[in-house]
Amino acid sequence: MRKIIERDKIEHNKKTTSLYETLFHNANGYIGIRGCLEEEVPADWDTMRGTYINGFYDIIPMKQAENLCNFVEEKQTMLNVADTQTIRLIIDNETFSLDKGKLWKNTRTLNMEEGYTLREVVWESPKGKKVQIKVKRMASFSQLTLFSMEYEVTALNFTGNIKIESYHIADVTNYSNSNDPRMAAESARHLILQDMIVTNDESIAVSKTQKSNLTMCSMVVHKVQGNASTFAKKEGNKGIYLVEARVEEHSKLTLEKYSVFTDSIRYDNVVEAAKTDMEAILKNRLAYYYEKQKIYLAHFWKQTEVEIYGDEGVNQAVNFNMYQLLQSAAKDCHCNIAAKGLSGEGYEGHYFWDTEMFLLPFFILTNPDLAKMLISYRYDTLDAARENAGRLGHKRGALYPWRTITGVECSGYFPSGTAQYHINGAVAYAVVNYYLTTGDLNFIVEKGAEIIFETARLWLDVGNYSKGKFVIHDVTGPDEYTCMINNNYYTNCAAKYNMRWAAKIYELLKKNALIEKLSETLTLTEKEIDEMKNAAHNMFLPYDEELGINPQDDSFLTKPIWNLEQTPKDDFPLLLHYHPLHLYRHQVCKQADTVLAYFLFEEEDDDIMKKSYEYYEKITTHDSSLSTCVFSIVASKLGMHQKGYDYFGDSAKLDLENTHGNTKDGIHTANMGGCYMAIVNGFAGLRIKEEGVSLTPFLPKEWKGYQFEFRYQGNLMKVIVLKDEVILKLQEGSETWVTIYGKKYLVKQKIEVRSKKNVASSYL
Amino acid sequence: MRKIIERDKIEHNKKTTSLYETLFHNANGYIGIRGCLEEEVPADWDTMRGTYINGFYDIIPMKQAENLCNFVEEKQTMLNVADTQTIRLIIDNETFSLDKGKLWKNTRTLNMEEGYTLREVVWESPKGKKVQIKVKRMASFSQLTLFSMEYEVTALNFTGNIKIESYHIADVTNYSNSNDPRMAAESARHLILQDMIVTNDESIAVSKTQKSNLTMCSMVVHKVQGNASTFAKKEGNKGIYLVEARVEEHSKLTLEKYSVFTDSIRYDNVVEAAKTDMEAILKNRLAYYYEKQKIYLAHFWKQTEVEIYGDEGVNQAVNFNMYQLLQSAAKDCHCNIAAKGLSGEGYEGHYFWDTEMFLLPFFILTNPDLAKMLISYRYDTLDAARENAGRLGHKRGALYPWRTITGVECSGYFPSGTAQYHINGAVAYAVVNYYLTTGDLNFIVEKGAEIIFETARLWLDVGNYSKGKFVIHDVTGPDEYTCMINNNYYTNCAAKYNMRWAAKIYELLKKNALIEKLSETLTLTEKEIDEMKNAAHNMFLPYDEELGINPQDDSFLTKPIWNLEQTPKDDFPLLLHYHPLHLYRHQVCKQADTVLAYFLFEEEDDDIMKKSYEYYEKITTHDSSLSTCVFSIVASKLGMHQKGYDYFGDSAKLDLENTHGNTKDGIHTANMGGCYMAIVNGFAGLRIKEEGVSLTPFLPKEWKGYQFEFRYQGNLMKVIVLKDEVILKLQEGSETWVTIYGKKYLVKQKIEVRSKKNVASSYL
Repeated sequence: MRKIIERDKIEHNKKTTSLYETLFHNANGYIGIRGCLEEEVPADWDTMRGTYINGFYDIIPMKQAENLCNFVEEKQTMLNVADTQTIRLIIDNETFSLDKGKLWKNTRTLNMEEGYTLREVVWESPKGKKVQIKVKRMASFSQLTLFSMEYEVTALNFTGNIKIESYHIADVTNYSNSNDPRMAAESARHLILQDMIVTNDESIAVSKTQKSNLTMCSMVVHKVQGNASTFAKKEGNKGIYLVEARVEEHSKLTLEKYSVFTDSIRYDNVVEAAKTDMEAILKNRLAYYYEKQKIYLAHFWKQTEVEIYGDEGVNQAVNFNMYQLLQSAAKDCHCNIAAKGLSGEGYEGHYFWDTEMFLLPFFILTNPDLAKMLISYRYDTLDAARENAGRLGHKRGALYPWRTITGVECSGYFPSGTAQYHINGAVAYAVVNYYLTTGDLNFIVEKGAEIIFETARLWLDVGNYSKGKFVIHDVTGPDEYTCMINNNYYTNCAAKYNMRWAAKIYELLKKNALIEKLSETLTLTEKEIDEMKNAAHNMFLPYDEELGINPQDDSFLTKPIWNLEQTPKDDFPLLLHYHPLHLYRHQVCKQADTVLAYFLFEEEDDDIMKKSYEYYEKITTHDSSLSTCVFSIVASKLGMHQKGYDYFGDSAKLDLENTHGNTKDGIHTANMGGCYMAIVNGFAGLRIKEEGVSLTPFLPKEWKGYQFEFRYQGNLMKVIVLKDEVILKLQEGSETWVTIYGKKYLVKQKIEVRSKKNVASSYL
Repeated sequence: MRKIIERDKIEHNKKTTSLYETLFHNANGYIGIRGCLEEEVPADWDTMRGTYINGFYDIIPMKQAENLCNFVEEKQTMLNVADTQTIRLIIDNETFSLDKGKLWKNTRTLNMEEGYTLREVVWESPKGKKVQIKVKRMASFSQLTLFSMEYEVTALNFTGNIKIESYHIADVTNYSNSNDPRMAAESARHLILQDMIVTNDESIAVSKTQKSNLTMCSMVVHKVQGNASTFAKKEGNKGIYLVEARVEEHSKLTLEKYSVFTDSIRYDNVVEAAKTDMEAILKNRLAYYYEKQKIYLAHFWKQTEVEIYGDEGVNQAVNFNMYQLLQSAAKDCHCNIAAKGLSGEGYEGHYFWDTEMFLLPFFILTNPDLAKMLISYRYDTLDAARENAGRLGHKRGALYPWRTITGVECSGYFPSGTAQYHINGAVAYAVVNYYLTTGDLNFIVEKGAEIIFETARLWLDVGNYSKGKFVIHDVTGPDEYTCMINNNYYTNCAAKYNMRWAAKIYELLKKNALIEKLSETLTLTEKEIDEMKNAAHNMFLPYDEELGINPQDDSFLTKPIWNLEQTPKDDFPLLLHYHPLHLYRHQVCKQADTVLAYFLFEEEDDDIMKKSYEYYEKITTHDSSLSTCVFSIVASKLGMHQKGYDYFGDSAKLDLENTHGNTKDGIHTANMGGCYMAIVNGFAGLRIKEEGVSLTPFLPKEWKGYQFEFRYQGNLMKVIVLKDEVILKLQEGSETWVTIYGKKYLVKQKIEVRSKKNVASSYL
């Protein structure tokens, strides 16, 4: 399956400028560069000209309108760092720009097999000179500090002077939009240039943050193919590399631009590190890194690819999503996966529960080592979570921050931020999920158990007994359209799971004589473990007899139902058009967290889940990008296959088709992970529990079949779902029991398991 | 009874500086001047050097840490205006200051019969020169724009040169304290000096606000008694008037300083207005205004005085409180009564529900005309309240702002601000209370009905039916230690009262053929009135069978009880030491709003009220200054006389004894009104309802008796409560039926009604 995304339009639409910046951004988990037009755009076009380093941030004050006790008063924000993508082109004194002259070709391409983006333009200047411009860009997976550009200009109908001005701009600020709560409200100069040296060979800029005391270095080297004169100069805080050549008709001038980014979180000496990397890079040059990129991606696709037979469009969207997850995910322990990856400044580069609940499932199944590293980030920030719990008045346990970069709470409006205690459940769930899938007991001993105990403890301090049931007050569930509610079904399920697993892990470690040291460190007693068991056992899960559904919280069903039919289309997403109090007072969901709980915690029988699903479906706006994928998974789970497929479709193309209208601010990584789950956990019904692996696949009628691979306890399995059979293969590893449609099969190497069933028929 | 408050200490305590600034401030409802030391204080003494004009404000941005839809983004703040109280004294080159030399006398006095404050100091300079300084200050009730000072220096043991530098400082900023949510967090220069003219005869400063486009003028004229040379100069934004004289031993030098304040809210030309007033003032001079002040206060005390026989200390405190209410209350329609009156910058000069629920009862009973004006303020700001309702998503009705100056919502943290919808009930209650007490139907027709209809309408939009009952979600009751709760008992009672009275007023106006025009203007139909009746009739009021009490809200009783006994003393008030989420998650009250509801709405029978009272008493911290007076009133109501008296004691001396520790930021006007109610409605059991006036007095055993007067429908009544009888006299007006201990008496002029009963015995 070719993995190419193309956008081909002769007319350049200035409205899509920032959208394409997101879709065609280059990232590798360490750096991310938005796919901006090299030549910059006219002032009235919306653009977010950004380059980011994962986890590189500054601290900015977050003044509270009324500052109550222990409110968060500053936040971290991901910084836009030096711009090295700007290149101006001048053809015999005419400057190339999309808003003048004539376009003959205007194509943007993302090649996900080879890991680059390509921009191809054929442009005729106002004076009639036609040039072809090709720009190939890459954020290298094999050399994380490297961002490369290959800028090639061909004179199509003239012989003349071609001049390229290539910039290295250290003077940058972040994007801001004070009208959208999802974006930073204020722009400020966070990076202060310390030093910039520009020579004919290289330019190096070193900048320091205002408050977080971090330093970063950007280094740029140019190489020219063809005869040209070159000249470098420094203008203010910009390095400019000038290339000038007389180019014959049908000939071309090519500039290679190597940018290396280093930062003081990873390197003691950012300049030395940049120089060392650059030296190595220049020894090998671009072709080498293109090849390495290809190999890296071949390996990636081999272990992750989902193939869909009979629907190339959807398959392409799924591939796009997985590729973006790869681009977004941290490749080292200093950071994580931001809500928008490294593709834009939406949510300020913060990490949310999205990582654990929507992204890790993909990595745990396809790349457990990376998953382990991502979970370790939570272990490394456990102390900050303990402090956060203390700030909220808790006497024990840890509370993970709702949004953060280094582990410190950065949420300014606590009712739909810090009050989302369920993030604790998400982190614990990820640890358990990782453990069940990999069997990696070492990780539990070293890090996982401590996370689970500390998160579980918090619930004991948050909740209390009322009439014999363990109840939890004043928390906010994933659905932010009600806040500070009592007994949020989702949260209570998550707390129950968290505490139940704390007890299980305790028993497991005890059995293996591994608990003693940790118990001592944490002053954890069997009594406390018993408290957890009891609280989990007696956890109150709201249920309404009359409707036969699980209310989202204690008071949800007594509120009036929001009239979605009579809500003007322009009023969505509701959060941008209604005061939160008005939303809180209605039965209306941004995403239905009860439905999500059905997938993750599976506490109820099918009848309740179906009734609830139908109930919530009617009142959910899907204003959250985390919503449709969940509705898909649970529809599949409940045998509502057509719904499962339809919601999956909404989810799969969310960014590629910009269905939420805000992809310009960055990709929606959680939805991308959710889209993967909608296939693997939804359509194929994959579950990994203590009892083992099970599958209950069905085939959407729009497809001819689909296949994917996943890793389970060291084994690599391949699942092929066809119209009338499910085929299971052990690709690597040793024989394993797998349950398909409730029947157990021993999967061995070189022997396919075939479960014959007309899987497509069930919903026809 | 002499109405003198005195503080006499030889040692000046720098810690009490700002406390005394509040206790000895001069105000008349229009201007307020804190009782600062004229000579200014050393830099390390806490001081809030303030002069205020009621309703004179600037607009400042109120940035939200995360700005959700329709959040309030700017607020009004009462401004500190020109400082005219500063006077420096130099005795033969030694400058008078409390932190050097020796104090022989150091007294502050508030004379509430004559309406002035007096400061008396006998000071010996480091070089041994002894002077007596007397400063008499007055904010004139008869000439609201006038603040006067009489600065008198007597040479006690020397003959020498005495120099007085009297300042008029136009360069002022507001006080700020970023650590206390009850104070403004930031200080900024709001007033920009436009013009300052200083001549030997007068100095005039005109300043303009930064954003609210208001102007104010301060004008100062000095008059010297005795032989002295004088000289005026301008230094920067200060006018300085210099007086120098050779003073013989035992002789004195006296300076009269007249300050006039005018503002563009009240006057078209602030300078002309100031000049006109000053001209008139100077014709009459100080003695005239002292006399007018005395007459004004004699009249005030005549109609308001509460006399207590046998406890001068408490009587003094009660007088102090009533005097402060007089100083604080607006005297024109452009403003109202700030939470701290005009005595300090706490709560930024904002008006709250305090006016309606705690202050108006006093004014309605003693000064109905002033009360009418104060309620009219709400009528004048009804459009702003309608806008506020719209901002919150309501399609009909008006929602009064939680805190405001001009009627615009100024609350930055909506969960314990805007969400306090019960303010609507408070405004409606005040209209009804005024109407029942005065019988002023005209006011209802002109203003009151519209207020009641518009506030009642809102409840229909806020609440909804659930299982046949009318329920109200996501509001905050007066007790801010839980927020955004469902079916807050107090709020539901207030809504019920509001809607029930809307229906009654509708019927009343209809009966008098006065409804047509208003119905048309408001598009109010009988159908909507029926909706109100039904909602009121079916209002859900939480009741717990098991405990036999009214829970504060739906979920209150399922929360854990805060352990007050084990809470360190330094942790009070809790709001300054615990994150709101932590407070919200516990049964703990800043003030018990259910108990308040028992006084105002009287929905339950005694048994439930008693059980509830005892329940809430155990979990109430009284961190709010609105708490103890309410506990007193309801204890009295329920026959718990000793408790009634004890809580009254806490309330009566709250500011005079600084029991909350923050009187330095300003007086607690609501508590002062509550203290009055604790006597009149509490001890004497005065109720005015549709059925008429009733009394159920008791006499605290600590007292020999007490008496007070009140106005009822044009009549002035006097109530005397003695150990064994209650005496009722009609002072003015026509015969009226009054119920005493359930028995009806016709009260006529010149005939005393005596109800014999051993009222003191009931609690012995």
